[in-house]
Amino acid sequence: MAVYTDVGAEELEAFLSGYDIGELLSYKGIAEGVENSNFLVHTRRGHFILTLYEKRVAASDLPFFLALMQHLASRGITCPQPVKNRAGAVLGEVAGRPAAIITFLEGMWIRRPSAGHCGALGEALAKLHRAGADFPQTRANALSVAGWRPLYAAVGPRCDTIQPNLSAALAAQLEEVEKSWPGNLPQGVIHADLFPDNVFFLGDKLSGLIDFYFACTDALAYDLAICLNAWCFEPDHSYNVTKGKSLLAAYGAVRPLSAAERQALPLLARGAALRFLLTRLVDWFDERSAALVRRKDPMEYFRKLRFHQAVKSVRDYGIDA
Amino acid sequence: MAVYTDVGAEELEAFLSGYDIGELLSYKGIAEGVENSNFLVHTRRGHFILTLYEKRVAASDLPFFLALMQHLASRGITCPQPVKNRAGAVLGEVAGRPAAIITFLEGMWIRRPSAGHCGALGEALAKLHRAGADFPQTRANALSVAGWRPLYAAVGPRCDTIQPNLSAALAAQLEEVEKSWPGNLPQGVIHADLFPDNVFFLGDKLSGLIDFYFACTDALAYDLAICLNAWCFEPDHSYNVTKGKSLLAAYGAVRPLSAAERQALPLLARGAALRFLLTRLVDWFDERSAALVRRKDPMEYFRKLRFHQAVKSVRDYGIDA
Repeated sequence: MAVYTDVGAEELEAFLSGYDIGELLSYKGIAEGVENSNFLVHTRRGHFILTLYEKRVAASDLPFFLALMQHLASRGITCPQPVKNRAGAVLGEVAGRPAAIITFLEGMWIRRPSAGHCGALGEALAKLHRAGADFPQTRANALSVAGWRPLYAAVGPRCDTIQPNLSAALAAQLEEVEKSWPGNLPQGVIHADLFPDNVFFLGDKLSGLIDFYFACTDALAYDLAICLNAWCFEPDHSYNVTKGKSLLAAYGAVRPLSAAERQALPLLARGAALRFLLTRLVDWFDERSAALVRRKDPMEYFRKLRFHQAVKSVRDYGIDA
Repeated sequence: MAVYTDVGAEELEAFLSGYDIGELLSYKGIAEGVENSNFLVHTRRGHFILTLYEKRVAASDLPFFLALMQHLASRGITCPQPVKNRAGAVLGEVAGRPAAIITFLEGMWIRRPSAGHCGALGEALAKLHRAGADFPQTRANALSVAGWRPLYAAVGPRCDTIQPNLSAALAAQLEEVEKSWPGNLPQGVIHADLFPDNVFFLGDKLSGLIDFYFACTDALAYDLAICLNAWCFEPDHSYNVTKGKSLLAAYGAVRPLSAAERQALPLLARGAALRFLLTRLVDWFDERSAALVRRKDPMEYFRKLRFHQAVKSVRDYGIDA
C-alpha cells in the first residue's frame, strides 16, 4: 500500500498526450497494490488508473497480464482493461518505469465477506476460468509447488523467532505436499491472488475483479483452494463451512469439479496455505518491505495450514466427495 | 504521504448515510497529506475527499480550520469546503477519528514552478489575506518564533551528526531572530504552509489552494516569507530573483506591503527558513515518521537560511525598499 514513484504533472501530461483520453484535470497517488505504484487519473473523458510497474513485476510478463485483461473483458468478465494509446500500444514508460493506463472500476472490497459474498465470488471465479479457457498465452506459476522450497530456504531457521520449531514444522509440511502434489488436474488461466481486496462489490452485487499481476497457468482447482483460504476463515482462524459450501456450490454450478479435483482439494488447500505462509514470512524478514507496507501476519496461514492438515475428507469443506 | 487508518466499505457507507451526497460507488486511500488520512470518495453526486484527522492535528483546532475554509470559499477563494451532513454538522467520526467530507478540487501541483506560477501564487496569497480579513476566529501560531526554541531543544546536539557544528550555528541564528523578531506588523489569517504541493494549477491557471491545517493568525508578511522560501529557490539552492520579483509584485498589486513589512522581509524570511529547518530536523530524528513518510532534506533550509543571512537589503529579493 504505497506509491513508490512520484510522477510530476508535466511528465504525466506529456505521457497522456499520446492517448486519446482528453485533457488531464487531476491525479492522486493511491494506496493500493503492494507491487506497483498506482494513480487515479481524472481527464475530460473520465477516470482511469495509471499503473507504474515497479521492479517486483518482471517487465517480460507485462504483455501476458495486459493481453489477459483484454481477453477476459472481451469474454464478459468485468475487470480493468488497458487503454490503447494512439499508436495502438498498451504499454509505455513513465518516470523510467513501464506504465499503462487502465480503465477504472467502481466498487468497494468487503472487509468481512458473508456467505452471500462467498457465493458471488465462487460464481465469478468459475466464469473467469471458463473465459480464460481459450486464452492462447501461458505463463508458468513461479509461486507453485516448485517455488516453495527456495522461499523456505530464504526464510530458514529465522522463522523460529516467531514460533519455536516453526522451521521444522514447515519442512515436514513442505516435504509432504511436494511428494503428493497432483500433476494431472485441469489446467488453465488462474488469478492466483483473488483475496477480498481484489474483488469489488456494489451493494451485494459483485462488480469486478482486479489485480491480475499474479495470473498464470496452473490447476484451476488450485485457484479455488486459494479462495477457500482467503474467504472462508473467520478472524479466529476457524473454517466457516457455510461460507465454504456457498463458494464451492456457486463455483460448481458454473464449472463442475471433476472427481479428481474434489479429491485433491484438501491437498491443494494445504499447498495454498503454505504458499501464502512462505511469502508472508519472506516479507516479514524483509526490512525494506517493512518500512513501506503493512506486513501481514504469517501465522494466520500457519493456523489455516493446521486446519487443512487435520481435514478428514473434502466433505469438511462443505462439498460432496 | 500515507494512509494511517484503514476504513472499511461498510463503515464508510454507514457514515455517508448521514449525508445527502448519494450512494457510495468507490473510494481509494490517497497518498496525500503528511498529517491526516485522506480518501478520494466517489458517490452518485460526484467526488469528495474524506479526511480522517490523525493525532498530530488537535481536535480542538478543527472547528477553526473548517470554518475558515467555509469563510474563504464564501469570499471567492477556490479552496476545499467542508460538506454539511443532514444535521448541519461538518465534523463527524470515522474509525475512531474526527472526520470530515470535503469538496474535491481539480488541478495538479507543479514540481518546477516558473516565474509565471510564482506570480499566480503571489496574487492568490494576497487575495487569501484580504478574504481572511473579516474572519472572526483566531488561532495562535504554535510554530512561530516562540515555538522554535522548544523544537531546537528537541533536536539538540544530535543535528551535528548531519553537519559538524550545525547545532551551534542554529543556536546563534535562533538568538538573533528571537531578539529582533518584529511584533507590530499587520496581522491576519495566514495559510502558513503554502508550498507548491498545496497549490493546484490547470494549465497555467491557478485552480485552487488546499490543506489549511496549519492556518493561524500571524503577520501576513510572514506568509509571504514562507512562500519566498518555498517557491523562489532553484534545486541548487540559489535564490531566483526573477521568480521572487514576480511573486512579490503580484502580491503587492492586490495587497500593497507597508514600509515596515518590506523592511522586515529579510528577517521574516530567515525566521521562515529556520521554522522549516527545525521541523524537518525533528522529523529527521523521528523514527516513526521515517517509516511512514519520505523525510525531507533539512539542509535545504539551512542553505536558504544562509542566503537570507547574507542579504543586504530587501532589494535582493526583487522588491524596492
